[in-house]
Order: sequence, then structure tokens, then C-alpha cells
Amino acid sequence: MVKPLIFISNDDGYKAKGLCSLINILRPIGDLVVVAPKFVRSGSACSITSDRPVRIEELCKEEGLTIYSCTGTPMDCVKLGLEQAVTRIPDLIVAGINHGDNSAVNVFYSGTMSIVIEGCMKNIPSIGFSLCSFNRNADFSGCSTYILKIVRAVLHNNLPLGTCLNVNFPSPDLFPYKGIRFCRQDRGHWESEWCADNHPGGLKYFWLAGRYVSDEPFSTDTDQWALTNGYVAVTPIKIDLTAYQLLADMPYWNLNDDLK
Amino acid sequence: MVKPLIFISNDDGYKAKGLCSLINILRPIGDLVVVAPKFVRSGSACSITSDRPVRIEELCKEEGLTIYSCTGTPMDCVKLGLEQAVTRIPDLIVAGINHGDNSAVNVFYSGTMSIVIEGCMKNIPSIGFSLCSFNRNADFSGCSTYILKIVRAVLHNNLPLGTCLNVNFPSPDLFPYKGIRFCRQDRGHWESEWCADNHPGGLKYFWLAGRYVSDEPFSTDTDQWALTNGYVAVTPIKIDLTAYQLLADMPYWNLNDDLK
Repeated sequence: MVKPLIFISNDDGYKAKGLCSLINILRPIGDLVVVAPKFVRSGSACSITSDRPVRIEELCKEEGLTIYSCTGTPMDCVKLGLEQAVTRIPDLIVAGINHGDNSAVNVFYSGTMSIVIEGCMKNIPSIGFSLCSFNRNADFSGCSTYILKIVRAVLHNNLPLGTCLNVNFPSPDLFPYKGIRFCRQDRGHWESEWCADNHPGGLKYFWLAGRYVSDEPFSTDTDQWALTNGYVAVTPIKIDLTAYQLLADMPYWNLNDDLK
Repeated sequence: MVKPLIFISNDDGYKAKGLCSLINILRPIGDLVVVAPKFVRSGSACSITSDRPVRIEELCKEEGLTIYSCTGTPMDCVKLGLEQAVTRIPDLIVAGINHGDNSAVNVFYSGTMSIVIEGCMKNIPSIGFSLCSFNRNADFSGCSTYILKIVRAVLHNNLPLGTCLNVNFPSPDLFPYKGIRFCRQDRGHWESEWCADNHPGGLKYFWLAGRYVSDEPFSTDTDQWALTNGYVAVTPIKIDLTAYQLLADMPYWNLNDDLK
């Protein structure tokens, strides 16, 4: 029987433990093609590289597993990988396992989720996995059963056109997890985002830091709530950003009056 | 009377003609604080800079207009600008005018729209303006009346929480424009995205290129249709990406069975 073809990428780079863990978890159930960034690309969002050329290099090829590194962003990895590294359209795109939380609005900043969004644009079922730990040596073993379950379910059920999954695991400190919660994206924002310091030459510079603050800390149906309370958060997301209610209301603004 | 405080940024950099045009258009109706990237940051999406420090430099300060450059991404410009360059929360955030189309799924790749998305996360009414021309010396004069109309309308009506506007102008070749269309985001994707070439040393490299292909070329309510047909496309977007229909269906996948 032909195994499903699973395309894998991440934003922490091809050497990351999270990527290695994901490969080990999925290897028994799919033929894997990995195209991961040569350099760490955390926080690269959906950025693309257009001001310089991009390269791809085969690092390893064995039965059921090929690994490439790519000098571009995670988004470039998908775009170039799908043109150069596979001979047919993958059955699934999987990103991660990210070292760090990508729940709530952080999906916008996330290189991991850019892989998923690009897959979704190309009508390929796509899932991002992230762990709430920035530790380079984080323990991903608690994710294994859940990832297999979710990946098998998506291969079986498919995903509706224009939708994809953002899966976040609570901190390993909360393992064993309490199960899966289907969630909506928490509404929140970042505060106190910069640490200022002075260059020896005198000029001030700023390091991005800050803390995420939920705007709805008492809601129990959000991904943030699930993660804080020890559940694996599965947030289905869509790439049609249209605000349909506002779209219905805007004609009453009469913006076309007096324009001509 | 106190003029509204308008925060402006872009992704083409502080020297771009589109930014200069936007400043000239909005100067009569607001006090402007501009924090724009020092370098060209086209296609930077919502990327943030966490691996190196960021700097901000005041370039110009006169009655009703202060301009800063910032070494970070457009997203950094908003985050740092709101902490360092303004003394109160702006009444409005405006991005652009971008040299190039940001309609349809391109909102995901767009540095211009990242400014708008960040503003929206921070609950500040935010609008992005883009022109369908990559010409560095493009003619933005046809945008002026529309921008004033839309900005005044948003200052007057406000925008619902979690929503913002993506405004795209057709190519200047289609001026005079036929008016404003309220649109939904076109569904589409990029094809044939890479041009391969050989390095003198022998290694292959790839330039990102490609063409956008609509998946629904016969729909007349999309931003792509409006732009092709000479209308200014106003697409209201929201930052809650949750796919609510899929969220309602997922419990039937029974993912929690046998997990424990």
C-alpha cells in the first residue's frame, strides 16, 4: 500500500529538536519530505524572500524520508519545496513541532503557521503543531499520541476548503495532558513590548520582548484557556479574512456619494 | 480644535513615494506621526525582529508632522512607534500607500497589512492603502479623494472591534476609477513561483516570481474583480481566524476516544 506523502517544515530550522521529534512521530505512517530553513526563522510570519535568491540543498535521502534545507523563510520552504522537492502533490502538510506557543493572535507572527497557511492556499490539508516551551531541549514526548491521532483524523476526514488546523500543546510541565479541546482563537495583544538599552557608543536600542495579555481572560472556549488548563488546543482556522458582518454594514456609510 | 492623531507606516521604507503621497494627502486633516522602515521591507508580512535589537531615529519634526525611521520590520515600526513615538493612543493607524497590490490572499504576505493587523490587535482603527503598480515612481494622485473619504468615514464611524480595512486601488492606467466597491477577499493562489538560474560556481539558485491565479475568476463580489474592473476595492477584514463552522463539526471526529 502506498503511504501518504507528508510534507514537513518548521521555522526553528532543520536542526531543531521539535522537527526531529515530528519526523520520528510521523515516519511510521507516511513518506516524508522535509524542507526546513537552513537558519532559525522564528517570528518570520508569512514573509517571503524576493530581494535575493533562495537555495535548497538535499541533506539526507533514505527509504521514506528525504530532508532538504532551504536558505529562505518557512514560506519559501513550502513554495520552493512543492516545486522542487516532491514529484506529486502531498496528501498533507505538517509544520513544527514549534518551540513556543502559536495560539491566539500569535498565529499572525508565526513562521510555523505560515507553512500551514500556504498549504491551505494551495488546497492541501495542513496542520501546525506547537509546544508551549521555548526550551531548545524541550520534551516533546507528550505530543506523540496526540499528533498521530490528529494527523490520522485529517488524512481520513480531510479539511474543508480554505481551512487548516493550529494545534498547540501545553507546557510539558502540565503533562499528562487532559485531552483535546476544540477552541476558538483567543482575543488578546502584547504589552510592554520593548526592553531599552544603550549602545556603548551612546545610541539607544530596543529588544523585542513583552508579554501576551488576553482581552477575554474569563472565556473558557479559547485556545489560551485550554493551554493554561492542561488541554491540547485544536483551533481550526480559515484564510478568508473577510469581515462579512462589516461588509454587510459598509454600504450604509455612503462612501460613493459626491465622489464623482 | 485638536486634530486627530494619525500614525502612519509602510513597508517600502521611509523614502517611498507612496508614503510621501499619503503624508501629503492626510496632512490637512490630522497630526501625523510617521514611523517607517529604514530599509525596504516588501513581503515581510507580520514578521517581527527578535534576534537583534531595533533602533528608531527622528528624521523630521515640524508642526503637525513627525517622521521617524526604524531599523525593524513594519510590524516592529508599529510596536516600537506606539511605545516610543507617540504620547497618546492614535485615533487611527494608516499604512501605505503600498507600491503593489495587497488584495486577496496577498494580505498574508503583506508588510503593509501587518501594520493594519497590529493596529487592529491593539484596538486602534486601522486602514491599509495599496496601489496596483510596483513602479517606484507610480502616480498616486488618483487615490487622494478616495483616501480622504475613507479616512474621514472611519474616523466618524469607527470600526467594529477586531476588524480593519484593506483598500486597494486599481492600476493608475485605469484612472479615473469608477467608484468604491465593498468586497470580500478573493480566493486564489500563486503558481510557477520560481525562476531558476545557475551560480557561476555551479549551484542552482531560485528567484521568487510567479503569478497570482484566482480560484474564482467569475465571482463579481471579490476584491480582484473590483480591481480588474476599475473600482477601488474596500475589503473589511478581521483578525479572528477561527473557522467556526469547522469548530462546530470537529467534535464529531471523536478525537478524544482512546486517548487515555
